[in-house]
Amino acid sequence: MLVTISRQFASGGREIGKRLADELGLKYYDKEIIAEIANTAKLDEEYVSKVLENGGYTNFAFSFAHSIPLVSPTPNTVTDVLVAQQKVIRAIAKKGDCVIVGRCADVIAHDFNPVKIFVYADEQTKLERCRARAKAGETLTDKQLLKSFKEIDKGRAKLYDLLAAYPWGAREGYDLMVNTSRTEITKIIKPLSDLITVLSARK
Amino acid sequence: MLVTISRQFASGGREIGKRLADELGLKYYDKEIIAEIANTAKLDEEYVSKVLENGGYTNFAFSFAHSIPLVSPTPNTVTDVLVAQQKVIRAIAKKGDCVIVGRCADVIAHDFNPVKIFVYADEQTKLERCRARAKAGETLTDKQLLKSFKEIDKGRAKLYDLLAAYPWGAREGYDLMVNTSRTEITKIIKPLSDLITVLSARK
Repeated sequence: MLVTISRQFASGGREIGKRLADELGLKYYDKEIIAEIANTAKLDEEYVSKVLENGGYTNFAFSFAHSIPLVSPTPNTVTDVLVAQQKVIRAIAKKGDCVIVGRCADVIAHDFNPVKIFVYADEQTKLERCRARAKAGETLTDKQLLKSFKEIDKGRAKLYDLLAAYPWGAREGYDLMVNTSRTEITKIIKPLSDLITVLSARK
Repeated sequence: MLVTISRQFASGGREIGKRLADELGLKYYDKEIIAEIANTAKLDEEYVSKVLENGGYTNFAFSFAHSIPLVSPTPNTVTDVLVAQQKVIRAIAKKGDCVIVGRCADVIAHDFNPVKIFVYADEQTKLERCRARAKAGETLTDKQLLKSFKEIDKGRAKLYDLLAAYPWGAREGYDLMVNTSRTEITKIIKPLSDLITVLSARK
């Protein structure tokens, strides 16, 4: 069984992925994939992370104030990252019995017949989730937070749209789209896992 | 508990609605609403049906070869239909404990906190469902069938978009979007009903 979770930032997709993996007895892959990709591409982990967050081929405007990479993002190195991502994700998917959060896994591993979930929520819910997890002293306004949500999702979509048949978040690309607005995530895990089990058996 | 099903034509939304109602012990409302609306608006049932299928305020190009209405569609009578639809749907929603298929019920009865489901499927699945139900001797091509699916969905969207905050089929307007491609509908009913039960308890 292979489950992929695409999600809007702050909608609880990561939490759903982890809890589903526990419920279904599956392995769970998330941020550790970045390290694996960096290792495969023989590139700095933080660099790899920035490339993937910014959708690959873009003009990078981020600063490396605290960790200077010896190499600037160039089309060659970006390609190396994307090729490494492909390799790593497909190797994981091949082993199967796992939940993968993000990383365009639903597209990269499409032929392994994953159950493809998209998680999203309304602005209010996302703001509440974000504030509940905010470090003490963070003073961003709702407007600033919503803007950052949009930017992060935009970065995710950029890379996804490079690889996928349908735009990121478009219903045609998923088996199930779950709106977590005003929802206690722990309560939906059991029925959601049962539904995924049934969908996983499709031809 | 109130459940509304919006759906693409031939995606199995109607079947899902009926089976969910059985599973959850809820009343099921579907085509009989048309008769109720016609009765409330004191208009011909077939006329009412045509108005609603064509999205309300349009230039009607349909023929009444076999049943001539004494009144042509005019903005006034169309309004009567829409007002009647509003009354009928809200009365049903107020009684609660039911599943309503279509009729923009999720929008019209939004304040009754329905669990809003959108059902869709890929073209292949929709063609197969349609052919499985086709009367003997029907010889429409795949291309013609797909065109008719688009037209029917377009009619549904037209009326919906008149009333709703989000476009018909846009994820923001629903709690759950279910892709029934390659899926045996009977198998997803139990877990789907459990999920709906949880979602129904949200504030």
